[in-house]
Amino acid sequence: MSTRIYNFSPGPATLPYEVLEQVASDIVDYHGVGMGVMEMSHRSKEFMAIMAKTEELLRELMEIPDRYKVLFLQGGASSQFFMVPMNLLGPGKKATYLNTGTWAKKAIHEARFFGEVTVGFSSEEQHFKRVPDPAEYQVSPGSEYLYFVSNNTIFGTQFQSFPQTDTLLVCDMSSDILSRRFDVSSFGLIFAGAQKNLGPAGVTIVIIRDDLLDRAPQNIPTMLRYKTHADKGSMFNTPPCSAIHVTGEVLKWLKKQGGVDAIEQINREKAAALYDMIDSTDYYRGHAEKGSRSAMNIAFNLPTPELEAKFIAESAARGLSGLKGHRSVGGCRASLYNAFPAIGVAELVAFMKEFEMHNPA
Amino acid sequence: MSTRIYNFSPGPATLPYEVLEQVASDIVDYHGVGMGVMEMSHRSKEFMAIMAKTEELLRELMEIPDRYKVLFLQGGASSQFFMVPMNLLGPGKKATYLNTGTWAKKAIHEARFFGEVTVGFSSEEQHFKRVPDPAEYQVSPGSEYLYFVSNNTIFGTQFQSFPQTDTLLVCDMSSDILSRRFDVSSFGLIFAGAQKNLGPAGVTIVIIRDDLLDRAPQNIPTMLRYKTHADKGSMFNTPPCSAIHVTGEVLKWLKKQGGVDAIEQINREKAAALYDMIDSTDYYRGHAEKGSRSAMNIAFNLPTPELEAKFIAESAARGLSGLKGHRSVGGCRASLYNAFPAIGVAELVAFMKEFEMHNPA
Repeated sequence: MSTRIYNFSPGPATLPYEVLEQVASDIVDYHGVGMGVMEMSHRSKEFMAIMAKTEELLRELMEIPDRYKVLFLQGGASSQFFMVPMNLLGPGKKATYLNTGTWAKKAIHEARFFGEVTVGFSSEEQHFKRVPDPAEYQVSPGSEYLYFVSNNTIFGTQFQSFPQTDTLLVCDMSSDILSRRFDVSSFGLIFAGAQKNLGPAGVTIVIIRDDLLDRAPQNIPTMLRYKTHADKGSMFNTPPCSAIHVTGEVLKWLKKQGGVDAIEQINREKAAALYDMIDSTDYYRGHAEKGSRSAMNIAFNLPTPELEAKFIAESAARGLSGLKGHRSVGGCRASLYNAFPAIGVAELVAFMKEFEMHNPA
Repeated sequence: MSTRIYNFSPGPATLPYEVLEQVASDIVDYHGVGMGVMEMSHRSKEFMAIMAKTEELLRELMEIPDRYKVLFLQGGASSQFFMVPMNLLGPGKKATYLNTGTWAKKAIHEARFFGEVTVGFSSEEQHFKRVPDPAEYQVSPGSEYLYFVSNNTIFGTQFQSFPQTDTLLVCDMSSDILSRRFDVSSFGLIFAGAQKNLGPAGVTIVIIRDDLLDRAPQNIPTMLRYKTHADKGSMFNTPPCSAIHVTGEVLKWLKKQGGVDAIEQINREKAAALYDMIDSTDYYRGHAEKGSRSAMNIAFNLPTPELEAKFIAESAARGLSGLKGHRSVGGCRASLYNAFPAIGVAELVAFMKEFEMHNPA
């Protein structure tokens, strides 16, 4: 472990080292059964137990009520962009979307294949540097649901509190699920690609209130119907077994850390350390407005693109990896998901001070 | 490795032990970069190299012509059941399907959402114990394509040669891809879930002739359009990185074995050893007709269900695992994919002789 670097990648992202070691062991031989976890039939009692335990831990950590189904699907969050409207909209139906970033915008594009979409708020002209205040948008009357992205990975913004509305809430929580406490029962549907806070790429979690399962039109393919997967415990076809297994190990790790409340506190402290550094100088400038700042992804700029390039190169040489911002924003970005260690933030802050000193604007 | 059992599971299935050891090492630290393979950004140069190498090996081993795109998708072969007709059919268009088993039947069901389907052959009333001879079916005039399943996992049947037709061929090769030599250029589209001959569950390979990419109707979701993935090298969204990495390691292993021709010879010998045992006695009876026998999945019965249950229990106790047949057929099934070792077949044959001797009908 001596050579392990600090990986600030936005996803796939750093995972707890003890999880990696456990997974490596399980891949060669799962608990002494004589075969590895990737080789076991998904119908074997061992793998069925992995599925059950993973779901149980997620329900426990998030306090998911019984009337919600938990699905383990494939295709990434990007596939939910069309599955949500395919299942919940249809001819003559409409929904309201909040356009707070790249992924929200893509979801809006896909929803328009299936119904009428009202964009209730957009910060696109402000380079997505903020999310709306509660009073800043209205849900279009008759909307089947209000769709929003709780954390915008690319722009480093995050809803500090969730919309209060009688309309069904649908949320893409890919980049902040399990990072903070919230009430699942105020949502109709939540989804998240695993590769940020939950595990590796290759599995997407969908949490859906059970009365929504019957809303889908009749003429959609079997695999695209939430009910198909809910009725079969995500075993209608072969699930992404290995990705689910790793997710289960991450959830065990999270429980050992003290669960969501404990990790939320740690996440706040990690983010505060970095924002404090940014705010202590004019050299670094945060992309997000202060009231919209994300605790997961912190996008910032240096005085010039040349200094940003130098910063990224020198930080990488110091074992601080993945700090380059998304191409649509430029600059730098530090992703501080649950598994990212506080010591890595301290290392980054120390490097930022040093870099500023040696490279005046 | 002393406790490693022989895993006859139909998929997820046994993988080469040296691949498991390499993957376990890469998961903890990939080639000394200071992070594991599941933690690396899919846009990192390391992961881009993994994708490129995996595709290159598949192209080399299967001799895939340049005018074919190779896609790494999610959702399993079951998602191809609807993606194929969604992309290649549409209102007023039709296709011919050969109904040779459970998976063919499911594909027919999904295709009917998108066009007119003619079933050109069905062995359903014969319990799917055979695939058709070339003269036994006709392609319905005007069909966009002829769809068939090259190997029927559940029933243990396999096309010994492929249809000769001017119609575009679409083939589900999930359970025999890379097990034998064939000419890719006689197909329009081939797909295969990885978890039998290619790697772990969680990635599906699609090999598609590039002129087919533009046939999709305009109103289908972005993620369901083959062209989306072809244009972005399967990186339109985050791919199932770990499953692709393991697949790449399996392909390296296959190349070291001598490639497809060498493994085909080994596969023939493994299957012959088991079929010879079955044919040498009336005690065991193969499910498939002789002319339709699969080299990958060998389904067989014993004199009574009670003896079958005893056979399965005793074989498992001997480290011969996963021999229970699919619930729709009953009896026993041995899956002998590429990575299944010949010595395991010899062990099974020895056990079968012994079991017959000790348990007369």
